[in-house]
Amino acid sequence: MFPTLYIDTDIVSQNIKKMADKCRRNGLEFRPHFKTHQSAEIGELFRDFGIRGITVSSPKMAQYFANHGWKDITIAFPANVLSNSVYDDLASKITLKTLVISEEVVRLLDQEVSNSMGLYIELDPDYGRSGIPINDLPAIRSVLETIEKSEHFYPAGFYCHAGYTYKARSENDILELITPTIKKLEVIKSTFPDLPICFGDTPSCSVLSDFGPLDQLSPGNFVFYDWMQVQIGSCSPNEIAVYMECPVIEKFESRNEVLIHGGAVHFSKEFIEINGVKSFGEPRLKYLSEETYLKNISQEHGIIKCSPNVFEEISVGESIQIFPIHSCLTADLMQKYKSTEDGRVIEHLSGINK
Amino acid sequence: MFPTLYIDTDIVSQNIKKMADKCRRNGLEFRPHFKTHQSAEIGELFRDFGIRGITVSSPKMAQYFANHGWKDITIAFPANVLSNSVYDDLASKITLKTLVISEEVVRLLDQEVSNSMGLYIELDPDYGRSGIPINDLPAIRSVLETIEKSEHFYPAGFYCHAGYTYKARSENDILELITPTIKKLEVIKSTFPDLPICFGDTPSCSVLSDFGPLDQLSPGNFVFYDWMQVQIGSCSPNEIAVYMECPVIEKFESRNEVLIHGGAVHFSKEFIEINGVKSFGEPRLKYLSEETYLKNISQEHGIIKCSPNVFEEISVGESIQIFPIHSCLTADLMQKYKSTEDGRVIEHLSGINK
Repeated sequence: MFPTLYIDTDIVSQNIKKMADKCRRNGLEFRPHFKTHQSAEIGELFRDFGIRGITVSSPKMAQYFANHGWKDITIAFPANVLSNSVYDDLASKITLKTLVISEEVVRLLDQEVSNSMGLYIELDPDYGRSGIPINDLPAIRSVLETIEKSEHFYPAGFYCHAGYTYKARSENDILELITPTIKKLEVIKSTFPDLPICFGDTPSCSVLSDFGPLDQLSPGNFVFYDWMQVQIGSCSPNEIAVYMECPVIEKFESRNEVLIHGGAVHFSKEFIEINGVKSFGEPRLKYLSEETYLKNISQEHGIIKCSPNVFEEISVGESIQIFPIHSCLTADLMQKYKSTEDGRVIEHLSGINK
Repeated sequence: MFPTLYIDTDIVSQNIKKMADKCRRNGLEFRPHFKTHQSAEIGELFRDFGIRGITVSSPKMAQYFANHGWKDITIAFPANVLSNSVYDDLASKITLKTLVISEEVVRLLDQEVSNSMGLYIELDPDYGRSGIPINDLPAIRSVLETIEKSEHFYPAGFYCHAGYTYKARSENDILELITPTIKKLEVIKSTFPDLPICFGDTPSCSVLSDFGPLDQLSPGNFVFYDWMQVQIGSCSPNEIAVYMECPVIEKFESRNEVLIHGGAVHFSKEFIEINGVKSFGEPRLKYLSEETYLKNISQEHGIIKCSPNVFEEISVGESIQIFPIHSCLTADLMQKYKSTEDGRVIEHLSGINK
């Protein structure tokens, strides 16, 4: 056997149900982000919960899901003016929305598209990645006016990703980190009461119970979760829907370490530091232990540091199941899933067209 | 346009020629590692330099290159006893060699194969990843005897990967780091004079001029190099054969930062720390500057921190060329190359079968 990514679709459905119920209870439109699973088959599981509008992170992902019957898609990445024709083609077939930040891009896009498109103004909640600074009302107004002047565009609302909640290490941390942004979004809401606010990070969406000024939720990672989300405080280990299964290659007794086939081309090089110690993955089930973790990886090698008990139990020629640190990246690298239910292969976009 | 990985095959050929010449001058067998490019077409470039024996890092890679006419392949990863039949099938078609570390694995493998196979004993030069500790002569002798007792196996020699040279930050650092391991390999050579020693890390192979007890070289990354190898001291920027080209999406004037489409699913999350600052990639050509670097990446987003001059020069709607930190991982993620010569697509194994 070779390193394999397993998926438990029962857990996937439970995770979707929980988030869909939460949105319904709070009167929020649920527009799940499909960048994590990137799979037509897993996408179908969302339809059982009445989902019609979805979110993706690239034009290619939008094309893929449009080809699989999704008619209302937000590309939650600022418009790429070097790919105008892709946006325009999509907008001719489906309800397409994307993000903008500057008047310049709105104008450049406007010159080359002929179909109607919704534009969210992306707001940066002091995360420093992308968006208009959330407090900069004059800049927000200017971009909004430029959108309204165009014949092709309509304002879809505001899009805000508070990615800094990944620094949290408990549910309370998440709530403390997100509260100032929610307060700033209240100002946006009272200034532009007619425009919906879409909001997306998995930690906040998982733990918030009062969504204040928000109108739409677009989390992605929650569909699988992962070991990072457990550490952040978003979920428990039994809510993680995917795991890697890797062959145990050798045992090194002098250092209580085990070599597996499973490296950076399988897990990604994403790690999390727990008490100053880096982990690239966490063995699950009977091997889940604070002292046992994927200590280091190179291209194909993984080294698991073991507690003495775990080291005794593991044998060469077995396989070991490991939670990924970041399921989005692991799924993208593995290019497909194997169902825990019946062993069938479930496709991932990166296995077809990247 | 979308993020694209370009390859300059002239630089590839220059890099191969330089290493092949070095091997010939030093009487070493050159068994290049194909894990970096993973491409049948790029593999063909090696034939011009008389290469017949190659190195790969997984059974799947061995199958791929065997299907493309390579008849002498080392899988430079310890034998996976859960895939015995794959090894046996390969060994029925080509000259197959792989690595072993323990008597247990030699015995398990021996029970299930029927074809002849060469086994390298992997030695660990205090790197802590994989192998018998290089000073443990009794353990080495025991494994060697177990190999010699088998009807299927013959000792192929010793395989030693000094991956710790990646900590170097100058040519002198590399030489200082590698010298103790070369001295230990002299002991191995004088103890087992009939067995060849195969040695592989790109930094050492790039800068050593005296290869002492070594018989075979199997570097991989040198074929492309990357920004990490420049920082290590292995090469100069004009020896890097691959780069990413990414669309410039937005500019953020308040922070001299630029958003590109190009994230962890394109570059990988490999980074290098230079003077305490993390870099996930380095813009090339006119944008190559100490103050300009890929500061942060998430799944699809990349943020380039710019010097004031570079920030002025970059425009939305252009694209920017960026050296990857670790070309092996970037190539694996991108799944194919585009030739700088004529724009043709060059295949990578991960785009066909992973």
